Amino acid sequence: MTSRGKHPTERTRVRRIPKRGAYDRTTIHAILDEGLVCHVGFVHQGQPFVIPTLYARDGGRLLLHGSAASRMLNALADGVDACVTVTLADGIVVARSVFHSSMNYRSVVMLGTLRAIEEPAAKMKALHALVEHLIPKRWNDSRGPNETEMKATSILEMSLDEASAKVRTGGPIDEEEDYALPYWAGVLPFATGVGKPVRDPKLKRGVKVPKYVSRYRRPR
Amino acid sequence: MTSRGKHPTERTRVRRIPKRGAYDRTTIHAILDEGLVCHVGFVHQGQPFVIPTLYARDGGRLLLHGSAASRMLNALADGVDACVTVTLADGIVVARSVFHSSMNYRSVVMLGTLRAIEEPAAKMKALHALVEHLIPKRWNDSRGPNETEMKATSILEMSLDEASAKVRTGGPIDEEEDYALPYWAGVLPFATGVGKPVRDPKLKRGVKVPKYVSRYRRPR
Repeated sequence: MTSRGKHPTERTRVRRIPKRGAYDRTTIHAILDEGLVCHVGFVHQGQPFVIPTLYARDGGRLLLHGSAASRMLNALADGVDACVTVTLADGIVVARSVFHSSMNYRSVVMLGTLRAIEEPAAKMKALHALVEHLIPKRWNDSRGPNETEMKATSILEMSLDEASAKVRTGGPIDEEEDYALPYWAGVLPFATGVGKPVRDPKLKRGVKVPKYVSRYRRPR
Repeated sequence: MTSRGKHPTERTRVRRIPKRGAYDRTTIHAILDEGLVCHVGFVHQGQPFVIPTLYARDGGRLLLHGSAASRMLNALADGVDACVTVTLADGIVVARSVFHSSMNYRSVVMLGTLRAIEEPAAKMKALHALVEHLIPKRWNDSRGPNETEMKATSILEMSLDEASAKVRTGGPIDEEEDYALPYWAGVLPFATGVGKPVRDPKLKRGVKVPKYVSRYRRPR
């Protein structure tokens, strides 16, 4: 997906196994909306760093947030080049041969520069998107940020104009002569979703677990 | 964890919320042994890239593998500086305030240079470690790599000498005055493990699912 339509740029085009590449908004947005953690890559004094952090997609942009005291966010707010990657691991592909064993996954690689959002209303809107990405329906059922907390929070945005997705699905593809081998083959899908909510021992008496928590699931 | 003992180097020291930092081998190795996907950061023509890939830990080194035709692996095999990050997402921390809502996670950030393993016996040993990391006990119950496949596979190694872990566990920590608020608070743990194995429709008749597949679980 690029601003020029469905064509990848030279540096986002998937080269290894091109059939796994996808550049349409629908595929890219679905992966980003399902995921929770991204990995942000940037260069600091010549050294690449890769840091995990929460994010949200808001229309055609990616939002990141963190402490205003964060070394990473401060470095990135200067508008340096970044690469943000989101990976969903779907399962282990168990092939008869070691060589064809693999993983099913969906990933998005985004290139661009990050920009700090400073204007209070825009920052509040971005924070709303971040909270609703993490726990849909939580914003209106929690104590919102005060001025001090807003100052202590940095929010960065990046355009999704230069993004590409890579997807592997399905079972193992073995060499023709290997299908006769007596080894088990198939896919081990990863467990998804969440377990039983664990209540805070200090929970105020009488507060019931809301449905958006007890029925929590990522969009798929 | 560094070669100088338990002390972090200046660039791996956890600065934001230092109490979450850990540098001992036990913590770092446990996170790496549980995880399956790492994110490799490197710089190519001035642009940072972050690519997800499978890995294994073998003693005090990290192993990566991929196609010999991979742009990433070829760039990295030249010995450029890299950052490899492994993140385990454990759960969503639901605080009464938006500001203190967070995630429980365990992550390891590793800095170093990657080196290609070329010598056939060493390469085979590394591939064995990679397969056994992905599916323990699979190596001896699958068709091993032939010479052509070995040539088509690149394996890289990196020392774990400059690694640090960051860990957040436990429930939400709210502002004292917020505990009286009528909002639910607690932790939503992520589901872990794998689901029911999906057999390849072309599975040779009579091949039963092995225990290392049906009882698959990551070390924890």
